[in-house]
Formats: sequence, structure tokens, C-alpha cells
Amino acid sequence: MQSLNEEILQTVIKPRPQESFKGTFGKILLVGGNHQFGGAIIMAATAAVYAGTGLVTVACDPLNATALHTQLPEAMVIDFKNQEKLAQMASQVNTVVIGPGLGEEAESLAVLKTVFANTIDDQVVVIDGSAITLLAKEKLSLPAGKLVFTPHQMEWQRLSGIKIADQTPEANKSAQEKLNGIVLVKKHHTEIYTPDGDWKLPIGSAAQAVGGMGDTLAGMIGGFTAQFRKNTIQATLAATYAHSAIADEIAINQYVVLPHQISHALPGFMKKVANSNKDHQIGFMN
Amino acid sequence: MQSLNEEILQTVIKPRPQESFKGTFGKILLVGGNHQFGGAIIMAATAAVYAGTGLVTVACDPLNATALHTQLPEAMVIDFKNQEKLAQMASQVNTVVIGPGLGEEAESLAVLKTVFANTIDDQVVVIDGSAITLLAKEKLSLPAGKLVFTPHQMEWQRLSGIKIADQTPEANKSAQEKLNGIVLVKKHHTEIYTPDGDWKLPIGSAAQAVGGMGDTLAGMIGGFTAQFRKNTIQATLAATYAHSAIADEIAINQYVVLPHQISHALPGFMKKVANSNKDHQIGFMN
Amino acid sequence: MQSLNEEILQTVIKPRPQESFKGTFGKILLVGGNHQFGGAIIMAATAAVYAGTGLVTVACDPLNATALHTQLPEAMVIDFKNQEKLAQMASQVNTVVIGPGLGEEAESLAVLKTVFANTIDDQVVVIDGSAITLLAKEKLSLPAGKLVFTPHQMEWQRLSGIKIADQTPEANKSAQEKLNGIVLVKKHHTEIYTPDGDWKLPIGSAAQAVGGMGDTLAGMIGGFTAQFRKNTIQATLAATYAHSAIADEIAINQYVVLPHQISHALPGFMKKVANSNKDHQIGFMN
Amino acid sequence: MQSLNEEILQTVIKPRPQESFKGTFGKILLVGGNHQFGGAIIMAATAAVYAGTGLVTVACDPLNATALHTQLPEAMVIDFKNQEKLAQMASQVNTVVIGPGLGEEAESLAVLKTVFANTIDDQVVVIDGSAITLLAKEKLSLPAGKLVFTPHQMEWQRLSGIKIADQTPEANKSAQEKLNGIVLVKKHHTEIYTPDGDWKLPIGSAAQAVGGMGDTLAGMIGGFTAQFRKNTIQATLAATYAHSAIADEIAINQYVVLPHQISHALPGFMKKVANSNKDHQIGFMN
Repeated sequence: MQSLNEEILQTVIKPRPQESFKGTFGKILLVGGNHQFGGAIIMAATAAVYAGTGLVTVACDPLNATALHTQLPEAMVIDFKNQEKLAQMASQVNTVVIGPGLGEEAESLAVLKTVFANTIDDQVVVIDGSAITLLAKEKLSLPAGKLVFTPHQMEWQRLSGIKIADQTPEANKSAQEKLNGIVLVKKHHTEIYTPDGDWKLPIGSAAQAVGGMGDTLAGMIGGFTAQFRKNTIQATLAATYAHSAIADEIAINQYVVLPHQISHALPGFMKKVANSNKDHQIGFMN
Repeated sequence: MQSLNEEILQTVIKPRPQESFKGTFGKILLVGGNHQFGGAIIMAATAAVYAGTGLVTVACDPLNATALHTQLPEAMVIDFKNQEKLAQMASQVNTVVIGPGLGEEAESLAVLKTVFANTIDDQVVVIDGSAITLLAKEKLSLPAGKLVFTPHQMEWQRLSGIKIADQTPEANKSAQEKLNGIVLVKKHHTEIYTPDGDWKLPIGSAAQAVGGMGDTLAGMIGGFTAQFRKNTIQATLAATYAHSAIADEIAINQYVVLPHQISHALPGFMKKVANSNKDHQIGFMN
Repeated sequence: MQSLNEEILQTVIKPRPQESFKGTFGKILLVGGNHQFGGAIIMAATAAVYAGTGLVTVACDPLNATALHTQLPEAMVIDFKNQEKLAQMASQVNTVVIGPGLGEEAESLAVLKTVFANTIDDQVVVIDGSAITLLAKEKLSLPAGKLVFTPHQMEWQRLSGIKIADQTPEANKSAQEKLNGIVLVKKHHTEIYTPDGDWKLPIGSAAQAVGGMGDTLAGMIGGFTAQFRKNTIQATLAATYAHSAIADEIAINQYVVLPHQISHALPGFMKKVANSNKDHQIGFMN
Repeated sequence: MQSLNEEILQTVIKPRPQESFKGTFGKILLVGGNHQFGGAIIMAATAAVYAGTGLVTVACDPLNATALHTQLPEAMVIDFKNQEKLAQMASQVNTVVIGPGLGEEAESLAVLKTVFANTIDDQVVVIDGSAITLLAKEKLSLPAGKLVFTPHQMEWQRLSGIKIADQTPEANKSAQEKLNGIVLVKKHHTEIYTPDGDWKLPIGSAAQAVGGMGDTLAGMIGGFTAQFRKNTIQATLAATYAHSAIADEIAINQYVVLPHQISHALPGFMKKVANSNKDHQIGFMN
């Protein structure tokens, strides 16, 4: 297991090509936000918008549409109970993020099944929060797509069957290989298991231990994989590193970091990384 | 095709006459924002308010009223399904902007037809987004008014019949002349075709390639044409230039520019321009 | 007619007495905000809260409750169609502000009549916007209370019967005396007619000529008269002066002033005034 | 009665242990916010989130869910009329705060009874605002839990039967001993009576005498007792001291302090305290 370092940022975040339009920077669908957990999908979508994803759509309980639009007029919204529309959107975007605030009710399960039935091989599918719990509990088949799982330790126990105390790198690796996707186990010094190798995140702090932090990370991974489509593993690693690097900056002056503050800091953070990449811009334009 | 430069800003944005009231600075109606795309009309209206339009009314799906009022208490709101009220407002303002987040459903078409049936010659009518697509698809007659079309390249293809690869200045010019209005083709280095000549925008960047950027531009053109009523072409050019000039300033420090940030920067940007105009204030007061 | 100057600020805005509680600083009820003009009552209430009124309640169309609470959790809200509650609140506060966004419909009139039937002599009643138009159109009797009318020129024509061109100080004064209250005619250099003399506001600019500016002024007058209860005329003059003084500061760097910006600047502005009063604090404590 | 001083802050607010997760920093349920007083529970919840509580849930009238999520996506929300869910949540958190904006209606009483029937000994229960009034009026039995009462003087009169003029330290102490909890009497120089001694708050000012200030304090006490669970009395004292210390800093430049400003300043304030504690970090880790 390697230690992830800041070089991943420059590998992924390059100056934008001038000849481009919204579609160049990807389309994302974020699915979640039931009647109780609306804030979670808003935080995830905020991360996706501020990461620079070209077009961001949220599928949630329509109860959350106003709070979403107020904070984030840049996002579009559909009713996650509208199966036809949900199926259509799920198959048309570059990345689907499912889970933040989805809940574990019958309604949540129906939404999850619709999404899982409609993703396609070419897409990235980020599976987070209650989507992981439902997947484990209901023994669902995995959907098509490049899968990224983002469980915290208890969710990972549910999904992998490995108890928290037994979640060694070896056991985790073996479970990740069976899932045939990327697995990010969220904890103090998060671990990321991928088909191309495994990484440990050396940064981050307890100032991030507040509700919504994981939703923001899921949204960032969504935004990065939709926008930087060359390499899903690298995009995932870069999003994870950036998330904690920004939090560490904020935590210099704050006892806790509010999740939305990380998202709002993204455009400035990414610009600094891209600027340090300028010499390599020609290579990127190829 | 001339290169548009910053002189257009001073031509249009003058110190405000002291003997004035809200009505002096124009009335605008912005029409759009269905159940899925509420953020679009909010972003357009935000641009109109921060540009200094005297009175700003939004006609949208009432689902969006709360998000609108929360971000923008300065705007008034009517239900776009209330045909009588919509018709009345459409005929009473200086500028109508139609399209941001309007959608392409039966409801959207009904709204579009009501607006088109009620504009008058003296008004500016900015036709944006789904209004362009509907206009092309439904082969509607053009409404009364000084028309400003703001398509991106695909919408321009739909409206003009010219495929993106064939959208040369000559072809575009010819199509604009048939439409008898101003045509602004949004792309890397946007082109503006008008009865008084054609311009290319030399500024702007890929940091603007995010959802909502065009809605903000439509709202700015709306606000400028409603407020600076002497010359619709110049007002349109100035709004377009200001939009990218502000974005370029923000992009110095940000990887992407959020559309609402452009609107919020407008009062400060316009003040700087007006201040540089002070010597010419007497001429303006005539 | 005297020129109002900044001394009025120090006369009214004193350091707060230490032995005090919320009730010391007054209770206000703001009535308005129908289905179309919700932003108006939000802007008025924002001014009242940031002015430091002890307790602020808004009576409006419940459609506006969420937008109000989002921007202003400090305010309470009741349904303006609940006649019993409205009547009760109207008789219990120090100041009632009625009019911002009230509209001119049957519903608006019913609300107005309920409020007018329940105010009491001891209260200040600020009558603004559509309340003035309704009062004139429906030839209503004036309510109990110390009345403050805040018409713009066209509303003043409706109320007084004096055409805008004929609104001379003499004609206005004569009309104000019949109304037996304070009359503030909003225009370039606003005029304030009172039983204790008449004033002209020498400050302010065209940067204030945007929708919502008058709603904010009504809310400030409400907040000042509720909080500084010794002298209603002085409180009204101070609010009016402060409103334009803050706007002038903002307009140094902005082409237009957004109404909510004035409210947000109030706590800082009032502190500077109160600090310059410190030597006189003992007198105030009497 | 001792004078509370800033040492209490360092006693309570320590650097966070690195090996931790959301649950380490506590779970809180805030109950209140009826149809009229939605802002109160939003302000209380804002304080709890910015204080760094691990997981924050609000039980309120669902009318307030959108305003809550818009300002505070970090919070979760349930309908306070859903008795089953309310009972379940009330028994599962570290701290329950009940009262901000709860109202005094039949509905409010039903909510209060459900919560009181489901708290457990191990929890902290903060009883504020209308919950105190209802408790007194309805002569309810006290709930299980470590009780913290936060009345202002009139509420204290209702609860203790001691008239405001007679609220001497001796009388208050005697009443607090009967309640078998912490009693915080909010006034100029707030008094805190506890089983371990009594304190007087020497800081704070009349700039805090605005609606919502007490709701924010209740939320902070909730957040501190949920997060710093070693000593409920110390956590309550620290929250109370921090609330006024932050307000005093803001009041240097503001005539009044808006309650939400105190909450937003919390992460920075707490960081400064924790930094000054660094030398003692090892002790904390034990």
C-alpha cells in the first residue's frame, strides 16, 4: 500500500483546453436525498458543481428541490420517483453518484434498482452511503459501469462481510478484487483499493469528523471522474486527496470543517494546481 | 467581422442621471424555469437585478418561487401558467427574456406562444435556450419586438439549419439577416451578428464552460437592453463583453467560474466603467 | 423646509442600556408579501431585524415563509389570512408596518382592513406601498396610531389628490396636515413632512433606483420607531437619513445598491454612530 | 456565586483525538420549530452544527425543512408529528434540545410529551423556551436524563414560581435544587445554578438583546454537551461563556449581534481555544 501524495493532483487537474464547451467537462447525475436526508445530496451536488462538472443533475425527493436550487442554481433537478426520467438520465451521463441521503426505505430501494438497471459499461458509478447498505442487505447484483465504492468502516463491514476489527489491507484487498471496482474505505487515513494498486491517504484530520463530509467526497469523486475521464482511478485518487488537502487548510483556523466549505474552496484550489501545471499544457492538449 | 473591445463598455454604461426613479432604469420580464430547470431562470434574473434593472419580474413554475425569493428578494414572481397575467406582463415591460430553463414540454410551448403573441414592436425580446429549440421545432412565427437570439452552436444549427461544421461567418450572417434580429452564437470566441455589423468576442475562457453561464448572459443582455434603451445593439454587445471580462477576472484565481459570481460582481464592475466616463457625463445628461 | 443632516443620527441612535432584554428594543409586525411580491416583505423584515428590533414578526402569504426563514431565521411568521391571529398581533406590537408587497387584490384589502381595525393609539403605523394605494382607492378611514406614510410620488398623488407636477412643498404640507401624520414623499431628495416641521433629504443617489429600496426604508422606519420610542418623528428622520447615508457609502464602489446590502450594513453603521455618542451615555440612561 | 471566567473554555475545548469518527463527537436531536417559529430551531441547529457535533437531527414542523436544509445541509430532519420516529430518535442521541420555537399549542404539547417519555438517564436534555412554559403550565413530570433548563426571567418565574423581583441567588438556588438539574437564568449577567456550584457570567452586552439569541445558546449547550461528554456542567458553562465571548467580539463593530453570526464564528473561536491547549494534549488523549 503506497502513500498517496500531492503529485496525483497535477496528474489529473490540468489547464482546461480552450476549444471546449459544457459537454467537454462531463455530465453527472447524483441520486439520493429522501425526505429525511435532503442535505446529503445537496452537499454532494455542491461538490460536483464547484469541481467544474459541465452539467449537474440531481434526482431526489422533490421536497428537496427548493433547498437545492437556492444553494445551487447551477444544478438541475428531477423527481427520483419518476422511474422513466431517472432511467433515461442514468444512462446518459458520464458519472452516476448514488447514495447520499438515499435512505433505506422501500422507495430508496426502488430508486436504487432503477439506477442499477440502467447504467452502462462506459460510465463511472459511485456507490455511497445508504446505497452500499441496501446493496449489501438486499444482495443486489452489481450494476454495469466502472464502480467506485465509498463506504465508511461499518458500511464496508456490511458490504464485504469483514468486521471492522478484521479490516486489514489483505482482507480489504481480497474483497475489493471480488467487487471488481475501486473501494475507498473512509477512516482516519482513508484507504483506497484499486485494480492498479492500493493507496493510503496520509493527510486529513478529526476536524473532518462531521456529518456531510462523506457526501461531499462522493460528489467530488463524481465531479472529477465525470470531468477528467482519461483515468477513473487517478480521478478518484485526486478527488480524495484534494478533499483532505483543502480540509487541512481550513482546519488551520477552524476546530471543525463544514463540508460545504470544502466545495466552495475547490475552484481556487484547482486553479493553483492547474497553474503549477502550465509548463506541461502542450502535452495535455494532444 | 470586427473584434469587440472594451470601448463598448464606456459607450453604454454611463453614470446614472440624478433625476430618476425605478422606472427610468427599465422593466424586465424573464420567462422560464420549469419544474426541472428552475435554477436557470434564477441565474438569469440574478443577472438582471445586479445589472441594475429598475423592476424585475420572473414568470416561472411556481415551484421555483421560494428559491427565487430566497436568493433574490428584489425580484417579483408570477406563475407562467397564468396566461392572462403572463400576457399582460409581456406587453408592459421594456425587455422580455424567454428561454432559460423553459423546457420543451407542452407547457413550455404554451408559455412561449402566449409570450410571442403579446410582445410589441417597441420591446426587446431576448430568445434563449429552449425557446430557440421550440421556435425551430414548432416552426413558430417570430414575435413582435427587437429580437436578440442567443443560441449555442447546436441551438443555432436547429434555428438556422446550418450544421455546426458549416457555421461560417458568411452562412451565419445570411441566416441572421433572414431573422431580422441580433444573433449571438455562443462558442469559444462568441460571434455577434447584427444589422449594424458583426463582432467577434476576443475574451473569455474555458473556465466559463459550466451550466448556467448562458442563462446569466441572457439575463445580463436583458438587464442591459431594458436599462440602456438608446441602442439595443450596443447594449447587447456591452453585456456580452462585460460577461466575459468579469469571468476572466474571476478565472485568474478560479479553475471554473460559477455563473452567479459574475452577477454578483456586476455592480462593482459597472461602477468602474461609469467612473471612467465621468468627464462625459454632461453629454449623457442631454 | 430644513435640510436634514447627520446630527439626527446621534440624536436617535444611542448606546444600548445594559439592563435590558429583547422587549426593551421593541416589537414589530410587518404585514405584506402576497403570492407575487414576497420579496418586498422579506426586504422590509430584514431591515427591521438588522436595525436591532427586539422581536420581529411577519404576516404574509404562507408561500413566503420558507424564503423568509431562510434569509432571516430571526423573524417569526404568521399567515396574513388568519384574521384572528393578525388582529391579535396588530394590537400588541410597538410598530406595525403595512404595505410592502401587499398587493391590491381582495385578499390584500381584507388584510389591510383587519390591521386598520386593530391598531391602537399608542402604536406607530407605517403605511407603505400598496397599502397607500388601497387606502386611497377604497377611501378607507385612517387607523388608530401615530401614522407614517411613505409614498413615492405616484402613490402620493393617489393619496393626496395632488398631481406629481403640482406636488409643491406648500401643497404637500397642507395634505400632510389633513392626514395628521408624518408623510415621507420618496423622490430624488426625499421630503418629510411632520407636525414638528418639514425636512428635505440632501443625500442619496440614483444608485438606489431599484426595486425593493422603498421596502427596505419602510422596514428601517419600522425598526427605528419600534426601538427608539421616545420620539417617532426623530426616529423616522434618523431611519431615512441612515438609509441613504449607507447607500451612498456602498455606491462609492457599486453602480447600483442592492436593498439587502443596506440592511446588512446597519449594525456596523449604527455602532459607529453610537460610539460617537459615548460621552452622552449618562444622559441617555436617565 | 463565582464569576465564570475564560478558563472554562480550555477546560472543555481540547484538540480532537485523531483516531475518531463522526460518532466520537456526539449525536444531537433538536426539537422545536412549529409553523410560526421555524427560525428558532434553525438557529439552534446552526449552533449545534458549527460547534462540531458529529450528527445533528432536527425534529420540527415539516414546513421548516426547506429553510433548514438551505441554511444547513449538514443537518437531517424529521417530522415532529411522527411520534414513532421522534420517540426512536429521542432515545438514541447523546443530547436532546427541546423548546426553540416549539410553541404552546396542543401539537407542541404532544411533541413535548413524546420526547419526555423517551429520554434516558444517560442523556443530556436541554429544556428551553416554550418547553419550559409548557412544563410549568401543564405540570408535567420531569423526563429522564441530565437536565439543563435555560429559562429567561419570565420563564423562570413560570417554572419556579419565583417572581422576577424575588429571583435572588438564594431563591434560585433552592428552586434549582428541587429541579435536580442545571438552571441557567438568562438575563443581563446570566446566572448558572448547578449541583457543583453556581456561577455568574460577567460578560455579554445589550447588543445580544435580539430574538433568536437564546435559541442559539440552547443549540450551543446542546452541541457542547453532546460532544464534550465527560462533564455536563462544564460543557454547559463553556458553551455559555463562549456564546457571550463571541458576541462581545462581534459587538465591538456592531450595534446588535445577529444570532447566526455567533454560530458562524464558533469554528474559529474554538480553534483558538484548542490551540492554546496544545501543551496539554497528551493528557486529553488518555
